[in-house]
Amino acid sequence: MSEQDFPEDEFAARTQAAQKAMHSQGIDALFFTTEAEMRYFTGFRTLFWQSPTRPWFLVVPVNGKPIAVIPQIGAHLMASTWIDDIRVFSAPHPVDDGIALLADTLKGFTKIAMPMGRESGLRMPLRDFQRLRDLTNHAEYLDGTGPIQSLRMVKSEREIALLREICGIGSEAFARAPELFHSGQPLNEVFRSFRIELLKQGADDVPYLVGGAGQDGYGDVISPPSARPLQEGDVLMLDTGATKSGYFCDFDRNFAIGQASDAVRSAHETLVRAVEAAAEIARPGRTCADLFQAMAKVLDQSEGDVGRLGHGLGMQLTEAPSLTGFDETPLRANMVLTLEPSLALGPDRMMVHEENIVIRDGSPEFLTVPAGPDIPVITR
Amino acid sequence: MSEQDFPEDEFAARTQAAQKAMHSQGIDALFFTTEAEMRYFTGFRTLFWQSPTRPWFLVVPVNGKPIAVIPQIGAHLMASTWIDDIRVFSAPHPVDDGIALLADTLKGFTKIAMPMGRESGLRMPLRDFQRLRDLTNHAEYLDGTGPIQSLRMVKSEREIALLREICGIGSEAFARAPELFHSGQPLNEVFRSFRIELLKQGADDVPYLVGGAGQDGYGDVISPPSARPLQEGDVLMLDTGATKSGYFCDFDRNFAIGQASDAVRSAHETLVRAVEAAAEIARPGRTCADLFQAMAKVLDQSEGDVGRLGHGLGMQLTEAPSLTGFDETPLRANMVLTLEPSLALGPDRMMVHEENIVIRDGSPEFLTVPAGPDIPVITR
Repeated sequence: MSEQDFPEDEFAARTQAAQKAMHSQGIDALFFTTEAEMRYFTGFRTLFWQSPTRPWFLVVPVNGKPIAVIPQIGAHLMASTWIDDIRVFSAPHPVDDGIALLADTLKGFTKIAMPMGRESGLRMPLRDFQRLRDLTNHAEYLDGTGPIQSLRMVKSEREIALLREICGIGSEAFARAPELFHSGQPLNEVFRSFRIELLKQGADDVPYLVGGAGQDGYGDVISPPSARPLQEGDVLMLDTGATKSGYFCDFDRNFAIGQASDAVRSAHETLVRAVEAAAEIARPGRTCADLFQAMAKVLDQSEGDVGRLGHGLGMQLTEAPSLTGFDETPLRANMVLTLEPSLALGPDRMMVHEENIVIRDGSPEFLTVPAGPDIPVITR
Repeated sequence: MSEQDFPEDEFAARTQAAQKAMHSQGIDALFFTTEAEMRYFTGFRTLFWQSPTRPWFLVVPVNGKPIAVIPQIGAHLMASTWIDDIRVFSAPHPVDDGIALLADTLKGFTKIAMPMGRESGLRMPLRDFQRLRDLTNHAEYLDGTGPIQSLRMVKSEREIALLREICGIGSEAFARAPELFHSGQPLNEVFRSFRIELLKQGADDVPYLVGGAGQDGYGDVISPPSARPLQEGDVLMLDTGATKSGYFCDFDRNFAIGQASDAVRSAHETLVRAVEAAAEIARPGRTCADLFQAMAKVLDQSEGDVGRLGHGLGMQLTEAPSLTGFDETPLRANMVLTLEPSLALGPDRMMVHEENIVIRDGSPEFLTVPAGPDIPVITR
């Protein structure tokens, strides 16, 4: 019944690429508990992950198709994907939410890799994981973070098409800012109107919308909105992660309410110049650290407190790699990245700016319609 | 800057209740990595959890206020909560995303409890968790799932007020169905219009919206929408988890497009009668299993494949307890529950219905405006 986001060969290609890496590293099976990895290899997409009640498991053997070990409630939807081997358990269950079935599925494998490193988590109870380890004590569990992140970093043209679409939707929504926002509007109403505009422009969902507003900058970039009305001289920033078919945009825009101070104008121009400096050199052969340094040089500040100046983008709002001074990941064609420079304007004031690009052979492709150096002024 | 969802005494009361349980069980500290628990004890609310890059840690000692051990990027927002002891680390960091600082924070504790059981997960890298265990090998890590779930199950009147508000918003949005939905409308456009309506009615966000449509029922209850147009004779079901100040509603409504078959009319009436049978007996002294049995008796089917007929509701779309035949959790006043009976109508066809209630001394309070036995027919 459910429509697939990609044809079967997309998932087959991902699986084969993973299996090639597994072969070369002597890994028998990959084991996943998390939404992004489950969806990456199967196409299984549902918001039901919002419910923490039931665990979901995926096993990617070194040969053959992935095996889904999932609660009965997901069997119908999983049957609409390319997966053939779907093993279901009843959940919630009095004593065993799928662990015996999962252990049985893993019994033929001795070197099992799973994400254990940076950006990963374990979406199953620790107690059940320990029981799984006990039931499969013939096997060694290895850290598979590196190979999986390396695979997911480089997007297919089909993935890029979805990312281009949602970035275009975000750009269209931001273009309507002069009609949507006005002085005196409470910040939570600004958020509400922008969420609605994103949906009207074609976003499926808006899982992420943060921002701030304040005189000559804002205090942080992760807060939910207050009811404080926009005031003359405010800088308003909205940062959105909207989705289309499960793929995210992640970029922001700044607006001056009524007027912008020289400090704000200058900061905005500097942020845009920092993005341009990174985009100028962003191509295969350079590294994440190179992009970080290119931006840091324009910003002329120490690293600041955000920790990085951009990151990977795709099925998650943020993905590997990180644009930091220590991430030496080489850029490869079809990586999708955010460029996200930030500037401190005072002890409790900052500004941030963000664009989304694809690394190409040659100049990068901008997925977002890039902001110009002049901060837009809302005059309503 | 950021407005708090509750006054400080709400968080102090939660902390004291947890500490009372810790005292009685000989626990020195609670340790959390997940959004709901962090927010429950601190009030720290942000959509930034969408980014998997950085871990967030909370330690609740047996005496005194909770201690936040968090990335620098969250320091400003955390400072707006009632928490005084905020220990920050730089993240992403080349080699240590906060583990040394966390270990130092935990060094005075020998019995540390954390969620390890049903419905829990570990939102930090497994490798880092192992390193934490190594650095704090003086301490014993215990499963604290039970005490925390027991605490969170019973809501304060302030929490219930937010839940009442978002359930009211959902009810208002569903009441507009005759104007929003019509025969020939693609299902993904049905979803889009309903999301927008929820926001217009005052929801902050719609993290969960699933559903289905099909002749005489739908195939599952977790799918994203297809582009298939609604047809005469379809049953349309929408199930929404919208939020207000971080609290969820979780209920659904069924609509017949143009006309309803006798089987659909009868199934809808049976589902509503099942809810009524559970609500009839829902009060302190009864158990979750009692509610399950009351519904199962009306449904006159075996448990089916959904696994349960309702669950707790609050800061998460689904919370403990579960309305199953094996969950003997006694009902207590101010528990908020969903009643969610489902019926199989054929090998690939089902219907589900859901309401949200508060357990009170006496009859329960309905937070949703309850559906009547007659399935509403959309005649446009």
